Amino acid sequence: MVGYKFMGKAHSNAYKQVNMFFDPDAEVVMKAICGRDEQGVKAAAEKFGWEGYETDWRKLVKRDDIDFIDINAPSDAHKEIALAAIAEGKHVFCEKPLALNLSDAREMLAAAEKAGVKHGICFNYRFLPAVQLAKKIVDSGKLGEIHHYRATYLQDWLVDPETPLAWRLKKEIAGSGAHGDINAHSIDLARFLIGEFDRVIGHNRTFVKERPVLESSSGLTGTGSATEKGEVTVDDATAFLADFKNGAMGMFVASRFATGRKNHNTFEIHGSKGTIRWDLENLNELQVYFREDEPELAGFRRVLATEPEHKYAGNWWPTGHIIGYEHGFVHIAYEFVQHLASGSPFAPTFEDGVRCQEVLEAVDLSIERGTWVSVEEV
Amino acid sequence: MVGYKFMGKAHSNAYKQVNMFFDPDAEVVMKAICGRDEQGVKAAAEKFGWEGYETDWRKLVKRDDIDFIDINAPSDAHKEIALAAIAEGKHVFCEKPLALNLSDAREMLAAAEKAGVKHGICFNYRFLPAVQLAKKIVDSGKLGEIHHYRATYLQDWLVDPETPLAWRLKKEIAGSGAHGDINAHSIDLARFLIGEFDRVIGHNRTFVKERPVLESSSGLTGTGSATEKGEVTVDDATAFLADFKNGAMGMFVASRFATGRKNHNTFEIHGSKGTIRWDLENLNELQVYFREDEPELAGFRRVLATEPEHKYAGNWWPTGHIIGYEHGFVHIAYEFVQHLASGSPFAPTFEDGVRCQEVLEAVDLSIERGTWVSVEEV
Amino acid sequence: MVGYKFMGKAHSNAYKQVNMFFDPDAEVVMKAICGRDEQGVKAAAEKFGWEGYETDWRKLVKRDDIDFIDINAPSDAHKEIALAAIAEGKHVFCEKPLALNLSDAREMLAAAEKAGVKHGICFNYRFLPAVQLAKKIVDSGKLGEIHHYRATYLQDWLVDPETPLAWRLKKEIAGSGAHGDINAHSIDLARFLIGEFDRVIGHNRTFVKERPVLESSSGLTGTGSATEKGEVTVDDATAFLADFKNGAMGMFVASRFATGRKNHNTFEIHGSKGTIRWDLENLNELQVYFREDEPELAGFRRVLATEPEHKYAGNWWPTGHIIGYEHGFVHIAYEFVQHLASGSPFAPTFEDGVRCQEVLEAVDLSIERGTWVSVEEV
Amino acid sequence: MVGYKFMGKAHSNAYKQVNMFFDPDAEVVMKAICGRDEQGVKAAAEKFGWEGYETDWRKLVKRDDIDFIDINAPSDAHKEIALAAIAEGKHVFCEKPLALNLSDAREMLAAAEKAGVKHGICFNYRFLPAVQLAKKIVDSGKLGEIHHYRATYLQDWLVDPETPLAWRLKKEIAGSGAHGDINAHSIDLARFLIGEFDRVIGHNRTFVKERPVLESSSGLTGTGSATEKGEVTVDDATAFLADFKNGAMGMFVASRFATGRKNHNTFEIHGSKGTIRWDLENLNELQVYFREDEPELAGFRRVLATEPEHKYAGNWWPTGHIIGYEHGFVHIAYEFVQHLASGSPFAPTFEDGVRCQEVLEAVDLSIERGTWVSVEEV
Repeated sequence: MVGYKFMGKAHSNAYKQVNMFFDPDAEVVMKAICGRDEQGVKAAAEKFGWEGYETDWRKLVKRDDIDFIDINAPSDAHKEIALAAIAEGKHVFCEKPLALNLSDAREMLAAAEKAGVKHGICFNYRFLPAVQLAKKIVDSGKLGEIHHYRATYLQDWLVDPETPLAWRLKKEIAGSGAHGDINAHSIDLARFLIGEFDRVIGHNRTFVKERPVLESSSGLTGTGSATEKGEVTVDDATAFLADFKNGAMGMFVASRFATGRKNHNTFEIHGSKGTIRWDLENLNELQVYFREDEPELAGFRRVLATEPEHKYAGNWWPTGHIIGYEHGFVHIAYEFVQHLASGSPFAPTFEDGVRCQEVLEAVDLSIERGTWVSVEEV
Repeated sequence: MVGYKFMGKAHSNAYKQVNMFFDPDAEVVMKAICGRDEQGVKAAAEKFGWEGYETDWRKLVKRDDIDFIDINAPSDAHKEIALAAIAEGKHVFCEKPLALNLSDAREMLAAAEKAGVKHGICFNYRFLPAVQLAKKIVDSGKLGEIHHYRATYLQDWLVDPETPLAWRLKKEIAGSGAHGDINAHSIDLARFLIGEFDRVIGHNRTFVKERPVLESSSGLTGTGSATEKGEVTVDDATAFLADFKNGAMGMFVASRFATGRKNHNTFEIHGSKGTIRWDLENLNELQVYFREDEPELAGFRRVLATEPEHKYAGNWWPTGHIIGYEHGFVHIAYEFVQHLASGSPFAPTFEDGVRCQEVLEAVDLSIERGTWVSVEEV
Repeated sequence: MVGYKFMGKAHSNAYKQVNMFFDPDAEVVMKAICGRDEQGVKAAAEKFGWEGYETDWRKLVKRDDIDFIDINAPSDAHKEIALAAIAEGKHVFCEKPLALNLSDAREMLAAAEKAGVKHGICFNYRFLPAVQLAKKIVDSGKLGEIHHYRATYLQDWLVDPETPLAWRLKKEIAGSGAHGDINAHSIDLARFLIGEFDRVIGHNRTFVKERPVLESSSGLTGTGSATEKGEVTVDDATAFLADFKNGAMGMFVASRFATGRKNHNTFEIHGSKGTIRWDLENLNELQVYFREDEPELAGFRRVLATEPEHKYAGNWWPTGHIIGYEHGFVHIAYEFVQHLASGSPFAPTFEDGVRCQEVLEAVDLSIERGTWVSVEEV
Repeated sequence: MVGYKFMGKAHSNAYKQVNMFFDPDAEVVMKAICGRDEQGVKAAAEKFGWEGYETDWRKLVKRDDIDFIDINAPSDAHKEIALAAIAEGKHVFCEKPLALNLSDAREMLAAAEKAGVKHGICFNYRFLPAVQLAKKIVDSGKLGEIHHYRATYLQDWLVDPETPLAWRLKKEIAGSGAHGDINAHSIDLARFLIGEFDRVIGHNRTFVKERPVLESSSGLTGTGSATEKGEVTVDDATAFLADFKNGAMGMFVASRFATGRKNHNTFEIHGSKGTIRWDLENLNELQVYFREDEPELAGFRRVLATEPEHKYAGNWWPTGHIIGYEHGFVHIAYEFVQHLASGSPFAPTFEDGVRCQEVLEAVDLSIERGTWVSVEEV
């Protein structure tokens, strides 16, 4: 695994939990974690339960005792590491976004396909029990024909203008702001649940144009005093309308300026026969409405997806005991490990990473042009 | 009608709305409203749409052009007025509580039955669409055998010790505090929904024992400066456990000290097949759960009782347009008027007032004794 | 008053309630209600409490004993009636939309201004206590600089393809579908709360293109058997993005196909200091978040706008007793009557009707063109 | 550790997570897990990450390489194992209930105190961030004087009469039903949050008196066909009223027959200055109301206890990322390990187990007698 910060911790935890709570056909052996700072990565290896560590990912990808590489490094490093790992015939699992731009993403997909290695991208929210239930409901036809898809992904960690300039706010490292970071999740969930995008049009904002630069930055914050200000080169918020290929109308907004909303990742889908609604802040619940219910008793049901009937829930605790954010990582890790071990089908792959990137770029292009942009055009 | 304050206004409004939104078999003609203060009652008569007014209820009950008397006076006057009206052969409709104590209430019921007049008591919450739906669900057997009934009626208007000593806090006028005022509603709803009480045990508190006496008090407050303190002679909160005759376990709490709860009148009923829950603060909604729903899709439904299928809702506005507190009065007034006009069945009557009073007094007796008290014993 | 159906009933009720629950400087005298069908309008006049009725609005607007005309007729008749009333020097209060198109609306505004009569448009939702509180919070600066405004107005009464072709689905009578009927309310609330629109871009759908034509249609439904199908000539759903003049990003969606949503008229406003959220289905509540709250205790507050501190709430019932949909009409009627009686300021006027129509038409133009349209352009 | 089923898994996971997400002063080394079935315990040891296993707890408690023993065996085995471990000078951490009855619990406490070993009991819910926040708010005086404490712990896994007779339904093994299993949690939270009980009175039910006996039972269910029925010897539901020593009124209900409620462990505390409310089904949230808030803006706040300011939350994920049921075990394990390693204060201890048992038995005694029972009496 490359990277040992927020996502490195989440992924390490996931592999450990897979062994404890699931029965994959192959056990996960956590060989080595990799980071540039030897002291930091050594500590992480011990704490997170890795057998060893490396400080140079070029060495990591060449090790014979390693079958697959999990890439959690900052977004600007994804492509180079992935291509090297693929060249060594390793299977690869990559954090989103796949790359800083669409052409890089396509290059990665082509390389993986050519090499015949297995590949995955970490759209973890697909694997929460309530989202799996949503997918099952849509696929069963219980919602009927889909008319509306609306998603929000709202956070507020940037609303304070004194929040420092983290790497996520620099275009050259992050590629994009709220759009690439969190609209990416909403786009993937929409594709997962109701299918492909046809055309889009959007607008965006960078509400605070300059922020303090700290001596050392880490994750969403940093340390040291702010000696100067630096320019924010990504969007604080991006919203867009979409037409889907199946005729549905779509509406998306991602913002890091939505005061009071901490992780308000929601979708609401209206079909001719029913509606479902989900919110990451109550990730164990799915709101469900069926028109076929007796009229005087119809209403949104709050389904608690913690029962034995719900996918993955039975691997954890008895009825009514909720799980948290990190469990999505455990489930996706389990599915990918199963995919490697037994050849069971797996999505999302690099192709889903490319499809998501196409929509992201079509939105950016629509903002530049001020008109609708067909996703096929980019 | 006797009384022109809070309840007088609510009842006057109800009669006017009955004519506009319903089609009773007889039109309501609002003859006269009665109060001791001529200036006040005259203004009220004009404002509320009464043809005339009286300052002496003894004259009111003797008027030949009046068929029925609605009694909204303070609780200590209910009995005398009702008996006089009944003696004149008038039909009577009385605010709750029927009387200050059980023996008075029984006397009123006996008089009404003997005289053969029609009688009703204003347990208005029975007549909200969501509560009617609750009743229909229970009666249909959709909840199965009832195991649990829990009710709260929580307010917080007394939590400030400087809130003055209103008439509702004096035992000789109000008869009781939170217990008689708001547990009474919960008891009536429980009887309406699942049937009779078997035995009870409770406890209570008067958290603030003395309060400022204002020069003039009106409704829940008053005017003028507080020259002295007076003793609070009723309970601030009363809670009790109950066994129902059908075997269900019951739990009730009424408080005027539940900080933050304004009008939190709720019930939750668990049966072997389902559960329902209601809250007056969202009175248009009923939460409903059915065990027979497909397990992976079962959940509490938020049923908005504003649809044409819901009783009374169709008399108001189109789908999804909510109604408020006062509409319960309109509906009970409509049903009582229909009862007078066409002989359609009507409850709650004075008998329901007596039954409710029995439970209230059994609870008080249980507090005195420290043991369970059978309702039949009082 | 012209019109005696859904809106006619709501407005009649409002005038009656104004007299009972408010103290306007002039009493409302309900002179005459007007409709083409004599039997129908006569019955309505009696039921709703009007002194008389007319079957020809041309006669109504000429009557000397009438000071102001309330226009509730179908949208295609608004202009002609209003111009005639204005020509007679009557004050006018008109249901929304002001007219079928922008040029008609502008003509009505110009006529009213030239004649010097007072004019109002029935954007009733402005006058609910929780919305008044929202306005007060925004104006006080407690939300800081506004970044995001999102509104939904979702209903589902058309999702059944067998729902008949009501007048609201014909462009020549209604002017527009969900857009003009319910986006109009959202646009007005946005203007009321945060100010003017700069530019917009939208998309729309007519999901069901043909519907059964009933022999007689009334309100949202009709009677008789369906002998043929007729074309739906308005939108079932319209969504759009907006930039506001103050820099905020806006997002709007109106639909009659949002299964399970009955009257889901919501707004959520994110500012640099706080957020507010409101939903018509729980119209007494306002969700409020303040960044200045102690961090470990910050959270969305559910403010129940039923307390004496909240505008209009004190005119109704004690603390915690909720009101319903129709009360917004009572409050706007009170304010307009006060405006007539005492010259107190009043909005929304015909000018607000025109402003709203401009945004509606800019959205339609943007749909036609596929590009952003400046509101000033239309 | 003794026991490897539901609780064994939860505790094993906790120890692993402590090492990864916390920095205790001593690392947890997971030496051995113990169970009677060698195949089962061996598999568990591997899966859960233990170095070895034992099939006889008598051998386990004698091992020199083990400092503390975690007891997860069925309730009837707690005492014997704990006394043996204490006799060997091991520190002990025990699942609740401490023992099958009060005298056993007292004997365990006395033994632990006499031996000077450290002891803890697994009231895990104390250690959720939202509950820690509740404690901090109460202790800070922000709620003022406490007037009301109400708790529910509602599940529905027994409502189906065909649910088999698990060990939890046999008095000789489980000691008690819903009362000892889940009222125990509510009693502990009440003591933790507002202090000691004075007197209690309760009632209970066993709604289904006989259930199928399966060939082999495990956890809440079992396998094989039901050849006969066996008697349920514990309560399905127990409710009680309480007076607290600080004068507050208390109300508790535990049920396994609350249809639709999966894990509805809630408390609501009303004080003279504020109110808090919590629900395990949304365990990351605390509802908070303060009277000192500006009246027109006062309302229940939904505080998401996932922020860096909230205890333990910072050890997991960034702002707004929720945690689940099992995290309470990780936190209590961390605190107990710290207690062993550094002597930091720790509660709940065996003394808390005894106090809880006293209340449980006082309630049972009150049910037997039909009168209030002072907790000091048992």
